[in-house]
Amino acid sequence: MATELFDVVSPETALARLLEAGLPEPRAETVPLSSAAGRVSAQPVRAPEPSPSFDRSLMDGFAVRASDTFGATESLPAALTVIGEVPMGAPPTRGIAPGEAMLIHTGGMLPPGSDAVVMVEHTEWIDDRMIEVMRPVAARDAVIRRGDDVAEGAVIIHRGARLRSQDLGGLAALGVTHVSVAQAPIVGLIATGDEVVPPDQTPEPGEVRDVNSITLTVEVERAGGVARTYGIVPDVRAALATVVRDAQRECDIVVVSAGSSVSTRDHTADVIGSLGTPGILAHGLALKPGKPSIVALAGGKPVFGLPGNPVSALVVFDLLVAPTIRRLQGAPADSPESPLRVRLARNVASTAGRLDFIPARLTERDGCLWAEPIFGASNLIFTLVRADALVRIPADANGLQAGAFVDIRPLA
Amino acid sequence: MATELFDVVSPETALARLLEAGLPEPRAETVPLSSAAGRVSAQPVRAPEPSPSFDRSLMDGFAVRASDTFGATESLPAALTVIGEVPMGAPPTRGIAPGEAMLIHTGGMLPPGSDAVVMVEHTEWIDDRMIEVMRPVAARDAVIRRGDDVAEGAVIIHRGARLRSQDLGGLAALGVTHVSVAQAPIVGLIATGDEVVPPDQTPEPGEVRDVNSITLTVEVERAGGVARTYGIVPDVRAALATVVRDAQRECDIVVVSAGSSVSTRDHTADVIGSLGTPGILAHGLALKPGKPSIVALAGGKPVFGLPGNPVSALVVFDLLVAPTIRRLQGAPADSPESPLRVRLARNVASTAGRLDFIPARLTERDGCLWAEPIFGASNLIFTLVRADALVRIPADANGLQAGAFVDIRPLA
Repeated sequence: MATELFDVVSPETALARLLEAGLPEPRAETVPLSSAAGRVSAQPVRAPEPSPSFDRSLMDGFAVRASDTFGATESLPAALTVIGEVPMGAPPTRGIAPGEAMLIHTGGMLPPGSDAVVMVEHTEWIDDRMIEVMRPVAARDAVIRRGDDVAEGAVIIHRGARLRSQDLGGLAALGVTHVSVAQAPIVGLIATGDEVVPPDQTPEPGEVRDVNSITLTVEVERAGGVARTYGIVPDVRAALATVVRDAQRECDIVVVSAGSSVSTRDHTADVIGSLGTPGILAHGLALKPGKPSIVALAGGKPVFGLPGNPVSALVVFDLLVAPTIRRLQGAPADSPESPLRVRLARNVASTAGRLDFIPARLTERDGCLWAEPIFGASNLIFTLVRADALVRIPADANGLQAGAFVDIRPLA
Repeated sequence: MATELFDVVSPETALARLLEAGLPEPRAETVPLSSAAGRVSAQPVRAPEPSPSFDRSLMDGFAVRASDTFGATESLPAALTVIGEVPMGAPPTRGIAPGEAMLIHTGGMLPPGSDAVVMVEHTEWIDDRMIEVMRPVAARDAVIRRGDDVAEGAVIIHRGARLRSQDLGGLAALGVTHVSVAQAPIVGLIATGDEVVPPDQTPEPGEVRDVNSITLTVEVERAGGVARTYGIVPDVRAALATVVRDAQRECDIVVVSAGSSVSTRDHTADVIGSLGTPGILAHGLALKPGKPSIVALAGGKPVFGLPGNPVSALVVFDLLVAPTIRRLQGAPADSPESPLRVRLARNVASTAGRLDFIPARLTERDGCLWAEPIFGASNLIFTLVRADALVRIPADANGLQAGAFVDIRPLA
């Protein structure tokens, strides 16, 4: 009676097939730094000038010739004549000669002739012109020299890097106020199923409200894409085909969350299979939840058929769609979040040969993070609302013992 | 010669003083779900109806009376008459009587009289009306009952919860299309220092470009605030006082990144101290980088004086300003990101009594994450650009050995 013949593959295999099937190159656009956070650099950026652009003090103190302080101690300090103060934001008005020092502030420009800064804490005024230096300094002490942070011409931002606050700060420091980034992929989201109604509608008996349009919209944006929703398509093959083809034309990625019934799933597979070459790359994943998923590439556009169940849809999105959105921007497919390992608070059963994800609460105990699985019908949306993370049970595991270390996907 | 008398406190103490000094309550606003991701719930949300709203099948199969299948085996199956199919999105047209079954799909509504679903895999058609059931099912098998996921009236979203994709999905499932969230705190950002020029300007010798306005803008938004920049104020007390008072009036939080010179820092402390009661709560932190910081509350508005150095400013922002932005929304002050522990790849020195942060690269080795400290002048912006994380060296440590477990703040 099964109307679907699954030749299940691991999610890793499905993703690898898609990434190797020839995805389009990212298209670039130039944006000001104020709009660049979280975007992906479309080309390497080289430093147009060195940073810092002048030899600078790292401390409040006195610019000196290091050789003038050699051998200085508390009992036998070196006496220096203070010939002035380095202004902030302007070059020193003169240089220093042997035996001279100049008051300097953090960030101040070193006067010609000086090669080090003595911290103010290691000096004492003798009179209103002379200081005593209690400790020797070496050349370059408390000084950062022109180009020490970054040399002119060095690559400061790599192609494919996701721009973080400090990256934008580095660009600003060098006067780079605009940056070339990958255009955000447009992701078309299509919900299907005769039983699905919009959230603002009261369902009749047997109907449920659309959950995936809002959850997947949020996840698309987290991955760097722009979501475009196509509403809810009834379980009619021609209607689905029309909407999917519209989305394929208008978007960079198409995501269909199939209704629950066999016929909706059949229509989804059928429509996705008819979109063009190379077509369906994987149909059925060795994954729970998320088995009845489809991965395809047609006309250079990735197309996904996700399960209608909201939890399953989120798991498959995270494993397959989000990496694709990142890759279409030229970024690594892997999540930019660091992997997180925690300990399992209870035994869990699983079937070898299948990757399992189990909703869990995180608790801290003995200075360690523990994942407490939330059992029950794990594919219910409120199970996920109550969870802090999804625990990953690897395909080669036949269940795991309490205390085992597991990777989690935080649901933050 | 020191013009600042620091009575340094730990960052934890400084934050605790501010949080206990009486911050204003969040102001609420109502937004549609499509604008609610990442926002903080301003009041508990209760389920207006149970979910699911009807008894539903979790599988493709047949709705049956469990008692009809008792004792069924492959050799002695139970024969049942299939009286029809449950449509998707509509109630069954009739109920089932003893000895009857009805074809049902995942998500379909259980017909009256049935109490379980037999998976299609455990059945076989005998003719076009009769099936054989090979395995017994218990009542409620493969069924989720009305209210099993969430009961009517139960709190589904707590006050102070940051709304994630699945939370919005849960709200959508129950027809809650708008939600009351805390208004995003407006954070005024003021840069100071005679040496600081805007990023689009070419610095004269001794000048540097403003880095903090862009980095702190990004971090304000990550924490859930709205950034309002006030440009660069020269090192003139009256000018600074005017801008800080404007920002205090127009914003919920004021952040001054003080210029590097002693006089700018003095002016900043002086101006912040004159804003109102209770005034300065901490001046000087047992923290590296970030020692010359100020935490104040004046007229119910938190006011921060951050070091001018971009790396120091980011560290202090993360420890003090971001928690305050979260708290002003009614959320926990702690970062929503799970703490991440990794191993230290090299020995690091530190001074006991002071919390240290060291930029590091993360590498994976032996299935474990290692932090490789980037030594050198750690307060340079490009050191942070090259880093993946900041390693936290606790105040009670007098340096740490290679191999030690350390907490990190990922720079993602």
